[in-house]
Amino acid sequence: MAKLIISNQRTEEMVGDLQILSPEYREYLGNQAQRMAWSMQEGDVIVLPVLPSEEFLEYVTGLLCIDREKITVIAPPAGRHGAGVLCRDRLLNEELLRRLERLVASHGIREIFPFHFDSTIAAMTRRLGLDSMTPGFRFLDQGGGRLLNSKAAFRALAAGAQVAVPEGKVCATRAEAQEFIWRELLSRGRPAILKQDFHVAGFGNEIVSPVPGVEPVGALRTVVTAGPEDLAEYLAERWDWLTDGDRSPVVVERYFADSLPLCAEFHLTDRGVGLTGHGAMRMEPVLNGHVWPAPASGLPGFDSFLHEAHRLCASIHTMGYRGIVSVDAIATPARTVLINEFNCRVSGSTHAYHLGERVVGTDFPDRRVLVEQRRRTFPDAVFERLADSGLAYDPVSRTGVLVTVEDGNASGGYGEYCVVAENTEQADRMEQDLAGLFARSGSAS
Amino acid sequence: MAKLIISNQRTEEMVGDLQILSPEYREYLGNQAQRMAWSMQEGDVIVLPVLPSEEFLEYVTGLLCIDREKITVIAPPAGRHGAGVLCRDRLLNEELLRRLERLVASHGIREIFPFHFDSTIAAMTRRLGLDSMTPGFRFLDQGGGRLLNSKAAFRALAAGAQVAVPEGKVCATRAEAQEFIWRELLSRGRPAILKQDFHVAGFGNEIVSPVPGVEPVGALRTVVTAGPEDLAEYLAERWDWLTDGDRSPVVVERYFADSLPLCAEFHLTDRGVGLTGHGAMRMEPVLNGHVWPAPASGLPGFDSFLHEAHRLCASIHTMGYRGIVSVDAIATPARTVLINEFNCRVSGSTHAYHLGERVVGTDFPDRRVLVEQRRRTFPDAVFERLADSGLAYDPVSRTGVLVTVEDGNASGGYGEYCVVAENTEQADRMEQDLAGLFARSGSAS
Repeated sequence: MAKLIISNQRTEEMVGDLQILSPEYREYLGNQAQRMAWSMQEGDVIVLPVLPSEEFLEYVTGLLCIDREKITVIAPPAGRHGAGVLCRDRLLNEELLRRLERLVASHGIREIFPFHFDSTIAAMTRRLGLDSMTPGFRFLDQGGGRLLNSKAAFRALAAGAQVAVPEGKVCATRAEAQEFIWRELLSRGRPAILKQDFHVAGFGNEIVSPVPGVEPVGALRTVVTAGPEDLAEYLAERWDWLTDGDRSPVVVERYFADSLPLCAEFHLTDRGVGLTGHGAMRMEPVLNGHVWPAPASGLPGFDSFLHEAHRLCASIHTMGYRGIVSVDAIATPARTVLINEFNCRVSGSTHAYHLGERVVGTDFPDRRVLVEQRRRTFPDAVFERLADSGLAYDPVSRTGVLVTVEDGNASGGYGEYCVVAENTEQADRMEQDLAGLFARSGSAS
Repeated sequence: MAKLIISNQRTEEMVGDLQILSPEYREYLGNQAQRMAWSMQEGDVIVLPVLPSEEFLEYVTGLLCIDREKITVIAPPAGRHGAGVLCRDRLLNEELLRRLERLVASHGIREIFPFHFDSTIAAMTRRLGLDSMTPGFRFLDQGGGRLLNSKAAFRALAAGAQVAVPEGKVCATRAEAQEFIWRELLSRGRPAILKQDFHVAGFGNEIVSPVPGVEPVGALRTVVTAGPEDLAEYLAERWDWLTDGDRSPVVVERYFADSLPLCAEFHLTDRGVGLTGHGAMRMEPVLNGHVWPAPASGLPGFDSFLHEAHRLCASIHTMGYRGIVSVDAIATPARTVLINEFNCRVSGSTHAYHLGERVVGTDFPDRRVLVEQRRRTFPDAVFERLADSGLAYDPVSRTGVLVTVEDGNASGGYGEYCVVAENTEQADRMEQDLAGLFARSGSAS
């Protein structure tokens, strides 16, 4: 069954005003959107913000063992937010819609697979006549996605599903926030993270800490508020920003410094809730990219984390959502796993699970480890150099380096690799070899 | 197991600013709060906005066959919104809380039963040490009640549970509202109801109609918008009000004139979802009060309405809510039943189900019909006159007139009766007898 893939990595409903994303970041997103190419199957039509190179498309289709000629790739004209994001005006462009109508008919498309199923995608789905065959369409069409995108809704649903979460509170007033943050957290020496209700990837989060030196992971900055007056001053200054002009409550949670971010991904279909895989953010040497499966899967609390995440997804499933849910958690320094967010959309791990299954093999999480490198500057002729050095992914040994996203930036820095190895030791060696290869070529990142 | 009943009929979280309720309406609410007395059991403590008369308390406890002396009734001092509503400042009054702490200990109270479980009640519950024994407390404490109080959330959850609803849309922008209302509804001759996301009892609803003469049931008024320009003008003028200054989306639904409002009530416990009962609003001669069970239960679509309402409650149960859910619906002139709202709190029917079961008998919905009269002016010595005339409720025949709420207003107009009869014909006769009795006494409403 052919599908229509739409790599809308950021939407108005995820971010608010897309203009708050810097031009550089939007350009980066436009490049990163290529990740969804790893979900292609024969007959698919894929809409990307920017056209990738033919070389990359042939590389991906080759590894996926599908015919490049049976894939249609489209990038609509740049819109009011530039070329990097598939914003509303680009996707609802009449010319694009007419072309997609023809392609839906000629390719026999029966499924739409966007990065984020927002109201723009709902309008497209209806226009293309795919609404009645899209599981969960009615829920999404009636604002279900917006409901689930709320961090306040996460707190309520997590409490309802009785999963372990950082202590916290949904605060509708400044007085409530001041009281909770000071009494329950700061006065006990605990930093707090404050989250805007609707935002993505840490852009709406800030940390307040009673002591200096707390690094803001998943947040814009840390503000030191040593006393209740400092906190009051901070809240007075930032309340408007935190609550989007008092439009939404702010979510407050205890912030655990030096914790390890984890994620688990589920696919919710009419048949039920299935675990797709799990991973972790890489913390060393810098926070950059993921590793799948999560090395923390050996922790005593990891299995119950997966069970709790499954329970949370069962709740979301009952509400009517169908599609991908990624559940985020942290392993605290005390080795406790606490769930702190879910996202009902494609994640930064989805392409890895798809290529893991289809390129590496369905047993990959048991037999292989995937290590991601992000924001790399590519040397010229990256595919040839990888092949010549013997580092390129080898379908026989099922190890090697995959180019998951091509570096489409003139000054470099947008490329992504995925190292496939039998274990983390081998992955470390391959990462060193990769660094050595490109250092010699004079184009290392 | 003794419980703490709190008759907080309107809260800040239900209404927004309680000050928008007129002083007369708040006084009426303070009187109406007596309904919760019908849920009393021995050992209970009940907090009411206004103290009812001893005569009324003896009347209710007598009919419920419990000892008046084993009930404690409290009305805290009037607060910033007057005596009619149990607003935040009254319930979090330190003196009240200290008294309740003592009563919780001495009565062995293990349960809190508020009209609406908002954040004020959550704070009280924790303060009184009842949090760990309150089912669903964590969900409510993390803002679950606010989430479920949203009419936009209703639309998404109803779609997710695949229940029949009026066609409609959650609109975040004026352009979206204009387009949907005009194209899908008004241009086809269909009126639309516009609902504020967070509001109660029709106070946040208005109707737009392409033709004059549409009576606004469950809404403040009907505005005639014959063309798209009229609609645009209306939306320009009212958008700020409809969206609470762009803080929330507006829910738009097709409005069915001449439809019959129905309700079904469910109790969600750790054991599951149970149907409590169902009823309808009385439309003739005027919209005033309920009748239980719903006469529409004979309609072909009624059973599937109950099944769909149950499915919706199962969704709410999975999310983590415990307590009462009332599901509102309409029977359209075409005899279709469409669900159009749910409320996760005690309803205007709860006291009738409780007295139905405990005074009339557990078989009441099969053997008896209850007919409510609201906003009645009481004659002097109402209990004696009812008894003398033979109209008072008789536990042997299990028919007659109950005084469900005493008329506590100096100028009259706040009292409520409930007529218990074997069938609607007998109920009609009893209502006529009641009118005749009080007409003769010169004090009819």
